[in-house]
Amino acid sequence: MTKQLKGIAASDGIAIAKAYRLVEPDLSYKKTTVTDIDGETKRFEDAISKSNDELQIIRAKAKESLGEDEAQVFDAHMMILADPEFTGAVKSKISDEKVNAEAALSEVSEHFISMFEAMTDNAYMQERAADVRDVTKRIMSHLLGKELPNPALIDQEVIIVAKDLTPSDTAQLNKKYVKAFVTDLGGRTAHSAIMARSLEIPAIVGSETITAEAKEDEELIVDGISGDIILDPTAAQVAEYKQKAADFAKQKAEWNKLKNEASVTADGKHYTVAANIGTPKDLTGVLDNGAEAIGLYRTEFLYMDSAELPTEDDQFEAYKAVIEGMNGKPVVIRTMDIGGDKHLPYLPLPEEMNPFLGYRAIRISLDRQEIFRTQLRALLRASNYGKLRIMFPMIGTLPEFRQAKAIFEEEKSKMVAAGKPVSDDIQLGMMMEVPAAAILADQFAKEVDFFSIGTNDLIQYTMAADRGNEHVSYLYQPYNPSILRLVKKIIDSAHHEGKWAGMCGEAAGDPIMVPLLLGMGLDEYSMSATSVLKVRSLMKRLSTADMKALSDKAVNELTTNDDVADMVKKATNQ
Amino acid sequence: MTKQLKGIAASDGIAIAKAYRLVEPDLSYKKTTVTDIDGETKRFEDAISKSNDELQIIRAKAKESLGEDEAQVFDAHMMILADPEFTGAVKSKISDEKVNAEAALSEVSEHFISMFEAMTDNAYMQERAADVRDVTKRIMSHLLGKELPNPALIDQEVIIVAKDLTPSDTAQLNKKYVKAFVTDLGGRTAHSAIMARSLEIPAIVGSETITAEAKEDEELIVDGISGDIILDPTAAQVAEYKQKAADFAKQKAEWNKLKNEASVTADGKHYTVAANIGTPKDLTGVLDNGAEAIGLYRTEFLYMDSAELPTEDDQFEAYKAVIEGMNGKPVVIRTMDIGGDKHLPYLPLPEEMNPFLGYRAIRISLDRQEIFRTQLRALLRASNYGKLRIMFPMIGTLPEFRQAKAIFEEEKSKMVAAGKPVSDDIQLGMMMEVPAAAILADQFAKEVDFFSIGTNDLIQYTMAADRGNEHVSYLYQPYNPSILRLVKKIIDSAHHEGKWAGMCGEAAGDPIMVPLLLGMGLDEYSMSATSVLKVRSLMKRLSTADMKALSDKAVNELTTNDDVADMVKKATNQ
Repeated sequence: MTKQLKGIAASDGIAIAKAYRLVEPDLSYKKTTVTDIDGETKRFEDAISKSNDELQIIRAKAKESLGEDEAQVFDAHMMILADPEFTGAVKSKISDEKVNAEAALSEVSEHFISMFEAMTDNAYMQERAADVRDVTKRIMSHLLGKELPNPALIDQEVIIVAKDLTPSDTAQLNKKYVKAFVTDLGGRTAHSAIMARSLEIPAIVGSETITAEAKEDEELIVDGISGDIILDPTAAQVAEYKQKAADFAKQKAEWNKLKNEASVTADGKHYTVAANIGTPKDLTGVLDNGAEAIGLYRTEFLYMDSAELPTEDDQFEAYKAVIEGMNGKPVVIRTMDIGGDKHLPYLPLPEEMNPFLGYRAIRISLDRQEIFRTQLRALLRASNYGKLRIMFPMIGTLPEFRQAKAIFEEEKSKMVAAGKPVSDDIQLGMMMEVPAAAILADQFAKEVDFFSIGTNDLIQYTMAADRGNEHVSYLYQPYNPSILRLVKKIIDSAHHEGKWAGMCGEAAGDPIMVPLLLGMGLDEYSMSATSVLKVRSLMKRLSTADMKALSDKAVNELTTNDDVADMVKKATNQ
Repeated sequence: MTKQLKGIAASDGIAIAKAYRLVEPDLSYKKTTVTDIDGETKRFEDAISKSNDELQIIRAKAKESLGEDEAQVFDAHMMILADPEFTGAVKSKISDEKVNAEAALSEVSEHFISMFEAMTDNAYMQERAADVRDVTKRIMSHLLGKELPNPALIDQEVIIVAKDLTPSDTAQLNKKYVKAFVTDLGGRTAHSAIMARSLEIPAIVGSETITAEAKEDEELIVDGISGDIILDPTAAQVAEYKQKAADFAKQKAEWNKLKNEASVTADGKHYTVAANIGTPKDLTGVLDNGAEAIGLYRTEFLYMDSAELPTEDDQFEAYKAVIEGMNGKPVVIRTMDIGGDKHLPYLPLPEEMNPFLGYRAIRISLDRQEIFRTQLRALLRASNYGKLRIMFPMIGTLPEFRQAKAIFEEEKSKMVAAGKPVSDDIQLGMMMEVPAAAILADQFAKEVDFFSIGTNDLIQYTMAADRGNEHVSYLYQPYNPSILRLVKKIIDSAHHEGKWAGMCGEAAGDPIMVPLLLGMGLDEYSMSATSVLKVRSLMKRLSTADMKALSDKAVNELTTNDDVADMVKKATNQ
């Protein structure tokens, strides 16, 4: 029967396909005493053998669709199945303690996992713990006669239905067949939402009940523009949404024509539409979408995708690739933003009650200066290959900025003294994401070269609400006049000192926010590469003078997030 | 040999006495196999018997010095010693598993503790878990031949030296003999610091190394005004500090003369100096120190000191006692501020990654309206006994305030309709502690009756730094110009609409902050009762016009916390 659900529109576009439930079955079991030891051992051996057969197939498929790199994870799984220390321990437990295979497997597995996990300074062992956990699930599913979802085996067009999607889930998806995501949890800034936008497939997050509602293979319509999901649609609905999909494709084609144009408003003002990236690989998307700059290169992935601190040379190569690849267009690189929810296996951080209010980003860099100085030297070396701008994350006080800048100048002087070439056109700026800094923007503006507003954190601190916490998600309010006042203060302060201001949070590509930012005169808009053309197209039809009236009203008169959103939607026909 | 340490001055005054180390000895042990079961059992029985003797003495002393209520906790301990289920389990373990008494005791104790702790919705069982833990330590100390600190036995003047002090530690201290506290950990807002101020004894927290440095019975000088600690002082130093102590006592006597005076500046402006309280018991201190109002009654203790939600009648009695006790002076009562670091055993809250940015205070009240409405009804009933002002904590947006106010009006109308008397002079205000609200203070001021600035949270969110996290404690900056700008905005906005503004955080009684607040025209200063007279005395010698010049400079020109503090100290001879 046709049924409709509503979620948070997280990535544009329309998809019509069958549901693929990426949902784990219930693998709970009862511990029992067994008398037939041989029979129980045989059950366990059968489960091992079935798991092995299954992994062979998955590995072959994964190699074909995802490549050899992604496929190798399954080799690690098969090695565990073949490891006599692991399987032997389970069999001994069955015979010595006369327990069923499920209990024996679970206890042995927990023992191995906690042993591996205890080696907290060894990234390799941490991965082995994850492998044991995955393999145990697979064996358990065969013991219990249940089926695990095997996303690597998908070979027809599907819409993924899941509670949430982790980075490792998405790594196993064959992008050729996945037409959309719908999840129970998450907001517009969740990993799955960002992933969907970068893959340019429609996505709806925070639907709350999709995993409870959608059956395997049930037909779904996903409208990533409105957030509507239709389960088991009527023929008329399918026809209607096919039309909408065609219209959307047409609009995308229109947007594509703007690829080599400048970003200019209806009244002829030029702004910079830039892209955010995480690795040099993302450069293709940036160039394909005609971004005029990179407004945020998140260097923490260099640290997170590595088993140890990246060397100066490793970093230099990555920064050089990006700066050179942009061919003279500006590249803003943010120094390491670790801590909060981002941890490194090889850099133990303190256990904190409120990590978002803790030891993170520039606070770590100023404290662990050897790490910071290595990064700065790599950046200085890369500065010779194009137009580099460096910014520091989580600056809250002027002494912090001054100290970071002094360390930069020290490293620069040392290189110059050693006769090494360094660009003399490196701008030094800061993220504006700590409310204290935004409130003193006029003072900071005298000392920095530029500001880049990080909306996610700025909103989270200003509203005192963790953006990942569903119990307070109603307080993630980008259009709240308090946020807009801070944004305006930052922009005005920069301009007053002849500096520029950008925004590199999710909001910079948001169609409600862009008109307000134009009204305030924001200089650079940095977003997911896939939003660049849409925003350029939106700018073309807006006049800055009209937008100024809107943003003035939002800042001075309106009192709530919803009132602002309603006003902008109405005034800009959205 | 004489040695000097420096800590954070947390409570005024000077003490000279011997160190009493409230530091637990190392109670670790090796698990061994024993052959002489009878001998091992005898060792355990001896330890039980010694523990019992010791507890008898402690109980008697505790009754004498602390009263019957505080002494009863030791009855619970003795009951465990006499419980055959507990001691029998240890003895069985010794004989069945042939392990030493230490290991048997530890394992049995862990089993009982986790059993009790698993009953998370039962406050009584949680307390039993704590009792088992305490008794186990005592038995273990006798098994290992070590001595536990027994603060209840203190019978001469001492200075307590500890890593940190918990509420249950302080409950066991005989206030007659404890002349000061010095701790390794903590800041000015730690429990031990607040406790020391309320007991009016000097305290220094955050010394980092006092427990490593101070030997038992070593003579100490503690200067709670400067934060200096002298170990094993010279005779000259003792004489010097005796003089300082006499001067301080004289100053206190001077302050005491101000008890019945109004709080008036050198240029004749009158302000309200008020006190913060947690329970009706604190009223004595408020009246003894001549506070002109209660600026903050933290009602959460009503919820935390109870095994279940307090009833409307329970709450009514508490509120009435406070309002009536103030005899017509204003009483600001804050509605329930649960969540963050404050949990209730009977009200399970979600597990949160960043509880300070989570589901707390008014966010819970608006979600769990039955709890909120009960509290409002109790407040409405109590309003007939004096001058009640109600404020809501953690308001971030106008819709939140509007909703809270609407619920209040609904409950009020129902009571009026039922013919029950209700004061028609209840002011409704809000805490200013979420940066978003402070930034929109001009809009809030049109809808509230008053603001009360909560500095601890306002600073923590504005600086994006958890005040309890030692790794970012340098960012707890009350004089940072960003904080001062928000404070000024809040005060100006209130005055523009003819409303009043108070401050009820620690900063309101801080001698550096008070001059700045006078300069900004803050109306009400609410602090620990013991700071009231000192602040009144400080106000007497300051002129608001001079202070306005200071606060203007801090807000408009200075850039750092330290620059502001230095300026104020110099200008006000502190």
